[in-house]
Amino acid sequence: MNRQELTNLVFKKKSVLCVGLDSELSKIPAHIKEGRSIEESVFEFNKAIVDATIQYAVAYKPNLAFYEALGLSGMTALHKTVAYIRSLSEPVFIIADAKRADIGNTSRLYASAFFGDGKTAPDFDAVTVAPYMGKDSVSPFLSFDGKWVILLALTSNPGADDFQLTATPDGMQLFERVLQQSKQWGNAENMMYVVGATRADMLKKVRNIVPENFLLIPGVGAQGGDLNEVLKNGWNNSGGLLINASRSIIFASSGGDFAEAAAKEACRMQNEMAQFINQL
Amino acid sequence: MNRQELTNLVFKKKSVLCVGLDSELSKIPAHIKEGRSIEESVFEFNKAIVDATIQYAVAYKPNLAFYEALGLSGMTALHKTVAYIRSLSEPVFIIADAKRADIGNTSRLYASAFFGDGKTAPDFDAVTVAPYMGKDSVSPFLSFDGKWVILLALTSNPGADDFQLTATPDGMQLFERVLQQSKQWGNAENMMYVVGATRADMLKKVRNIVPENFLLIPGVGAQGGDLNEVLKNGWNNSGGLLINASRSIIFASSGGDFAEAAAKEACRMQNEMAQFINQL
Repeated sequence: MNRQELTNLVFKKKSVLCVGLDSELSKIPAHIKEGRSIEESVFEFNKAIVDATIQYAVAYKPNLAFYEALGLSGMTALHKTVAYIRSLSEPVFIIADAKRADIGNTSRLYASAFFGDGKTAPDFDAVTVAPYMGKDSVSPFLSFDGKWVILLALTSNPGADDFQLTATPDGMQLFERVLQQSKQWGNAENMMYVVGATRADMLKKVRNIVPENFLLIPGVGAQGGDLNEVLKNGWNNSGGLLINASRSIIFASSGGDFAEAAAKEACRMQNEMAQFINQL
Repeated sequence: MNRQELTNLVFKKKSVLCVGLDSELSKIPAHIKEGRSIEESVFEFNKAIVDATIQYAVAYKPNLAFYEALGLSGMTALHKTVAYIRSLSEPVFIIADAKRADIGNTSRLYASAFFGDGKTAPDFDAVTVAPYMGKDSVSPFLSFDGKWVILLALTSNPGADDFQLTATPDGMQLFERVLQQSKQWGNAENMMYVVGATRADMLKKVRNIVPENFLLIPGVGAQGGDLNEVLKNGWNNSGGLLINASRSIIFASSGGDFAEAAAKEACRMQNEMAQFINQL
């Protein structure tokens, strides 16, 4: 999905909601798991969540850790989930939250593991990439037509302070330097950035450096970021935001009503987004 | 495998050789692939390489990208490879070169994907971890008894210059700050560091900050690092080094003699290591 298509989707659905499919097996409702294999349990859960939320969401973001932790069953469930979302008539943006990166020729192989044809490798639109190894670890992900890198800039966890906020000689903090430097590697058509919503004040700084790019904002919901603040400080003419909520939606209820509860929470967030968009 | 056991292995084998199982399918000799599935081809290749090199090596390091790029077949081949190495009577250190990290609870799941019982999850000794997200993204990997984090400090690719060498306010470069700060998260019994051998001069700086820790040194061989320089500058009382070579060993020949050629190159490197160790 290219930038114009994503922007169209944002305005059509009046939503920048990304649903994080952090489908940890131990938290999947018991009645889903009854009589099902691990692979089927995770897939059925994801399918129900997607069906319940797709009218409110423009993107889905499985975090690879939750699938890799289940071994081959988990990876199969992930492949099936992506294929299921792709089979729906509604177009939607799909992000592999994998935080990969390696030296050049190796990064190319990681990219091919996510930007596949849907057979051997799932057909994601984007993959999250860690910047520590620099340009040649990121660029291979940018060479796939119509695909996206989402580069970690400022994350929403406490450890973000350890290095990302470190001052550098040109007066910028490290995360700003990552933004500044990586602008030369890609552009607003193939590069987004992760910016933690627990730091909405930082969004203005980010927007000064990358006014055009889409930002993937984790940390709204369970992690405590303020949705309206994020919309105000992060919005641009293309929408420019994908605001992720994971646990607050997918585990809104652990009972038989988990899908309805997920829909309700997704709808609540989308309503707040629609209010903001309607005022533009 | 704990530090004392690893040190014993180093002195017994007179080797700090780590063989990188970067088993890219397109480079596996044609006769291995004839009549075999992808999964079988990769596994048979790895098995032959391990059998040919284990007398010279103290560690093996599959890079996950090469397996993930092959989808479930690749991951199955990886699991089988680790299980095969574990089944041998010789103990050996096994590293998942995965360069993972995520926010705390998610990193814990990544760790469980590598530090398994050999059934659902392979039983690696160590996993490479990226430092950008800070302490709480690294610590969960440190909570597994007898298991190791190998934290990226200074990598061997050109992009290492982009951020790792950035100056920080306390006069250190970012990679030094990563070393300094992470010393508080783990210790020489559960934390190693990646230090690229294309920068052997930097090894002295590294040793000033982390005198006790093992260092995983990529970039010797195909990437051009000097083995003897690395030994001289990186060695400590426990050995303190794992020197990795991947392509220069495993793809030393693409013919029917690939295993013999791998053994020959591994033997050549181990001889140089033994000469150094004998002079101590």
